[in-house]
Amino acid sequence: MSVRKVQQNIDLKNVRVQDPFWSHVQKLMLDTVIPYQEDVLHDRIPGVEKSHAVENFRIAAGEADGQFYGMVFQDSDVAKWLEAVAYALIIRPDAELEKRADEMIALLGRAQQEDGYLNTYFTVKEPEHRWQNLRECHELYCAGHLIEAAVAYYEATGKDQFLCIMRRYADLICSRFGKDGVRGVPGHQEIELALIKLYRLTGEKKYLETAQYFLDDRGVEPKYFQEEEDRRGWYHWGGGPVDFHYFQSHLPVREQSVAVGHSVRAMYMYTAMADLATEVDDQPLLDACKRLWDNVTNKQMYVTGGIGSTRHGEAFTFDYDLPNDTIYAETCASVGLVFFARRMLEAEVDGRYADIMEKELYGGILSGMQLDGKKFFYVNPLEVLPGLSGKQEEYKHALPKRPDWYACACCPPNVARLVTSLGQYAWGQNADTIFAHLYLGGEAEFALNGGVKVRCESGYPWQGKVRYTMEKADGRFTFAVHKPGWATDWQVSINGQPWDVDIRDGYGWIAREWKAGDVVDIAFPMEVRRVYCDPNVRENVGCVALLRGPVVYALEEADNGKGLAALRLPRGVEIAAEEQSGPLGDVVVLKAVGKRLVHGDDLYSVNPPAEVDAEILAVPYYAWGNRGEGEMRVWIHE
Amino acid sequence: MSVRKVQQNIDLKNVRVQDPFWSHVQKLMLDTVIPYQEDVLHDRIPGVEKSHAVENFRIAAGEADGQFYGMVFQDSDVAKWLEAVAYALIIRPDAELEKRADEMIALLGRAQQEDGYLNTYFTVKEPEHRWQNLRECHELYCAGHLIEAAVAYYEATGKDQFLCIMRRYADLICSRFGKDGVRGVPGHQEIELALIKLYRLTGEKKYLETAQYFLDDRGVEPKYFQEEEDRRGWYHWGGGPVDFHYFQSHLPVREQSVAVGHSVRAMYMYTAMADLATEVDDQPLLDACKRLWDNVTNKQMYVTGGIGSTRHGEAFTFDYDLPNDTIYAETCASVGLVFFARRMLEAEVDGRYADIMEKELYGGILSGMQLDGKKFFYVNPLEVLPGLSGKQEEYKHALPKRPDWYACACCPPNVARLVTSLGQYAWGQNADTIFAHLYLGGEAEFALNGGVKVRCESGYPWQGKVRYTMEKADGRFTFAVHKPGWATDWQVSINGQPWDVDIRDGYGWIAREWKAGDVVDIAFPMEVRRVYCDPNVRENVGCVALLRGPVVYALEEADNGKGLAALRLPRGVEIAAEEQSGPLGDVVVLKAVGKRLVHGDDLYSVNPPAEVDAEILAVPYYAWGNRGEGEMRVWIHE
Repeated sequence: MSVRKVQQNIDLKNVRVQDPFWSHVQKLMLDTVIPYQEDVLHDRIPGVEKSHAVENFRIAAGEADGQFYGMVFQDSDVAKWLEAVAYALIIRPDAELEKRADEMIALLGRAQQEDGYLNTYFTVKEPEHRWQNLRECHELYCAGHLIEAAVAYYEATGKDQFLCIMRRYADLICSRFGKDGVRGVPGHQEIELALIKLYRLTGEKKYLETAQYFLDDRGVEPKYFQEEEDRRGWYHWGGGPVDFHYFQSHLPVREQSVAVGHSVRAMYMYTAMADLATEVDDQPLLDACKRLWDNVTNKQMYVTGGIGSTRHGEAFTFDYDLPNDTIYAETCASVGLVFFARRMLEAEVDGRYADIMEKELYGGILSGMQLDGKKFFYVNPLEVLPGLSGKQEEYKHALPKRPDWYACACCPPNVARLVTSLGQYAWGQNADTIFAHLYLGGEAEFALNGGVKVRCESGYPWQGKVRYTMEKADGRFTFAVHKPGWATDWQVSINGQPWDVDIRDGYGWIAREWKAGDVVDIAFPMEVRRVYCDPNVRENVGCVALLRGPVVYALEEADNGKGLAALRLPRGVEIAAEEQSGPLGDVVVLKAVGKRLVHGDDLYSVNPPAEVDAEILAVPYYAWGNRGEGEMRVWIHE
Repeated sequence: MSVRKVQQNIDLKNVRVQDPFWSHVQKLMLDTVIPYQEDVLHDRIPGVEKSHAVENFRIAAGEADGQFYGMVFQDSDVAKWLEAVAYALIIRPDAELEKRADEMIALLGRAQQEDGYLNTYFTVKEPEHRWQNLRECHELYCAGHLIEAAVAYYEATGKDQFLCIMRRYADLICSRFGKDGVRGVPGHQEIELALIKLYRLTGEKKYLETAQYFLDDRGVEPKYFQEEEDRRGWYHWGGGPVDFHYFQSHLPVREQSVAVGHSVRAMYMYTAMADLATEVDDQPLLDACKRLWDNVTNKQMYVTGGIGSTRHGEAFTFDYDLPNDTIYAETCASVGLVFFARRMLEAEVDGRYADIMEKELYGGILSGMQLDGKKFFYVNPLEVLPGLSGKQEEYKHALPKRPDWYACACCPPNVARLVTSLGQYAWGQNADTIFAHLYLGGEAEFALNGGVKVRCESGYPWQGKVRYTMEKADGRFTFAVHKPGWATDWQVSINGQPWDVDIRDGYGWIAREWKAGDVVDIAFPMEVRRVYCDPNVRENVGCVALLRGPVVYALEEADNGKGLAALRLPRGVEIAAEEQSGPLGDVVVLKAVGKRLVHGDDLYSVNPPAEVDAEILAVPYYAWGNRGEGEMRVWIHE
């Protein structure tokens, strides 16, 4: 274990998810998303733009003729699929799927070059340009995703073929770049966190050192990207001056305090920074992580958890700039923020990180997927208006409904690999403590005191009751359970008796002698919360968002008619929470009698708009856009 | 006079403007804007991108070597300058200026081709492409502006050289296009209204008929633009399918009901439609004008009078889509709406048209110009935020301060020609009535009852008192004075005695025997109005705009600090109007004690933002952006 790490992941194989909410989502991944992706990768879906990703590997392996096709980062689609398959095989063994994954891995092996290099774009299309355009060409990004997949596949199956392939490639990368090699930093961060994963699995120091090099040389004068640019003389995407902010290369990473640029790149970088800070006990780096965390979550994050305010660069803009309709809020960026949050939890136990994981999972990530798992959003707006959203130029990217599969398939496999590995985010441990970061139903086993097995039964996110049962336990350890930041009350009882729980840092710490059969009941009220936004966010002044537990709510035209902006929920109006089963599944909806401002004859008038009573129904934000195209709005006028 | 026309323009030479507000603005035009433009046209301003407009004519005339430079519509800058000069010479004779204008006109004559053709782009650069790309190349647009200028110059000076040049060109156009010629409609409307002006001056029917043809053949299947496209095989601006809405060619003009596409093109077309409808008594055409008028002013117009909601196509979008920050609201479009309003007043006397002229003059047009006449806005936003406006991609066009002169100089000369001809918009007449559409101080003479001369003294827009004195009058006629739509009370007295005025159609009709020395006093309260927007406009729900008389007000950072969106003006708070002299001139400002929402620690909180008292000061919208760069906002939270 690293010097700093206060707790760490547990092996996914030691977790079983049996959760009334998430088991269904995981099943969708296994039954729908992963098979669909596999078909896409093999170009087997008629009418969907071909991926060619597998074919690219076949060409690189010399087993097919033809040209490279697709994006320069097409390989990463295969990687993310393999990573999700690895986690899926833990959830539900599937010999056929595993065989096909093995075959894919074997193909990767055959496509690998003599020296370990593995990238179909540069192998097939521009072999002369290898390593020359790190800024634009995602070479190290694809390597990172393949390494992550290889680590996951080894951990899931115990088979090391993929791991060996990727170690050869990682060795090549480590021998090329760094203080003893040539300069180079990735245009799209990802390799850093992947190499740290590889280091953690293998114990091989050079992987950690190269990850550290990539972070250390970023943003340092003279800037690598400028050197590369001056030397190169050709572009992949197009010319113009280097926008260092876009790549988070405007400053050395330890000097960064404000999230800038492409939001997914930022998240992957911050994740690696937190990883490195805990591994090598780098306080200045951890301080930078904390500053960036605070900036992201307290200045630049939507109430749904979405991050990235503009499609231009799919990027952060500046503090308090959070337009609800021209928003970007890419699903992948929310996935990335969960990665970052989980890593921060390894550096310090603080409920804020778990709060954001919750927010993302029940908000900005889940909203990316149709309830049936068949369609996806990249962009997660907080306000849509058919006729404007997805149509008018400024709003073209913020679609009012989930489209068919994308050619650029980054978000769906990212959601798949997160949801299938959810157990790792829910649980943690260290030498004397078991952590429950999320209320995720199921079981988890820990190598503590000769073995502990905890079962969790949860009605989350709808009910404020969670029960932990020690199925196996014998001796003293601490059980630390996350107390959501929004919970005003949070009661613990053990074996039916109230327990005066020690609440610190957003966790309830229960230190005692445990024995098998001990039952911990946690109860907290699930009240509807009116949430207000800092008035620096001009779009939300005078408005309120409705939340209950970790769930953010939205108004949809399907329930409230057109003209959602004309609805008011005056302060003081009672809001009822009601269980509902229907097209959105078994959910809790919110109901209130508010007001509707009535359209008059004149566009402008000295008479305020008249108001009539209006029944308002709000549904979970993550479930929006599942009932045809219509208006949607999160922030409601008070 | 046409069959329909209920009243008509008067000769500008019969109007003298002596107005405490507008005389200053006219003086700016004469002393600053027109001379500056002249220098620009001659490429005499260092550091400003060269115009080359005059040089293009010299090259076309064979008097200089070189290539055409500038936009395909560069000629129109010369035309608009000449038109403004014509009006300026009426306001203040200037032999030197007139001599230089005469020389410019002579140059135009020498640049004219044997057959009458006069366009420097196609004469110098692409003679083989003449008349082939009406959609993109502004050939007829430039012709229209030159014709308008020639008519104005003749009316101002009595000299017919320019008129003869343009009649030759107009004759060529009329002989080429129409039912007996080839098909063709202009990509940018303007020729239609110009030919009708030429017809009115000369009585030559074919000018009217060709204008009618251009309107009649627009939007008719098979669409001309598609025919041209299919035949042509080359582009000026670029390919792609023809966007018929952009050019208002989606439907025959008589079938149009909703304003679409490029807003300046739309305004020029509607103006010509209203002209034609009155000239030939075309009720279906007039009905279309009324529908379009209603749509523009009651569904798609900003409270400042701005029109055009998006920069993409500088265009209308759809009903109630009125974003305040990504807005276009081009100054030229507001100028065009004044043209349209004035023509509608010729078809029917209705105070709504005069109301909009007022709104534009004291709002969306005047805001286009810096108070010193030296800089201009094309885009007139209702909300700016430095750091966002003018910078972030979606807001790049909505500048937070007026830039130096533009290479594409459409708006400044358009403002110049409107303001210098203001008298024509203020006054009207028919056989038995004199109309005062605007409260414009000065004198106007009418050929009615042997000659009438009216003097107007007005403290408008700050004071609600206007005095008309009949300096010369003898006999019975009607004096019809516009009663602003916003005026709740409007009292008339004649020679000191209250007069029970007949108010109909937004005008007070005073029919009596008049004699020299009669004095009409009009008094109306100038109360501050809280104006509300239709709740269909999502941006303005919960907000209020402040107006007083025809003047719209705005908050500026210079007076109110940063964070204007966090200011509230609760309903019921008293708002005081106060005269102020300072950097904004002699204006009336508005003051109130409202609330400021206070920034807390958290981006999101269950606690509503705290409020503190805040002194709020609002300044006339047209004067915004004259005190450095800062936030500005028209719609204020209530």
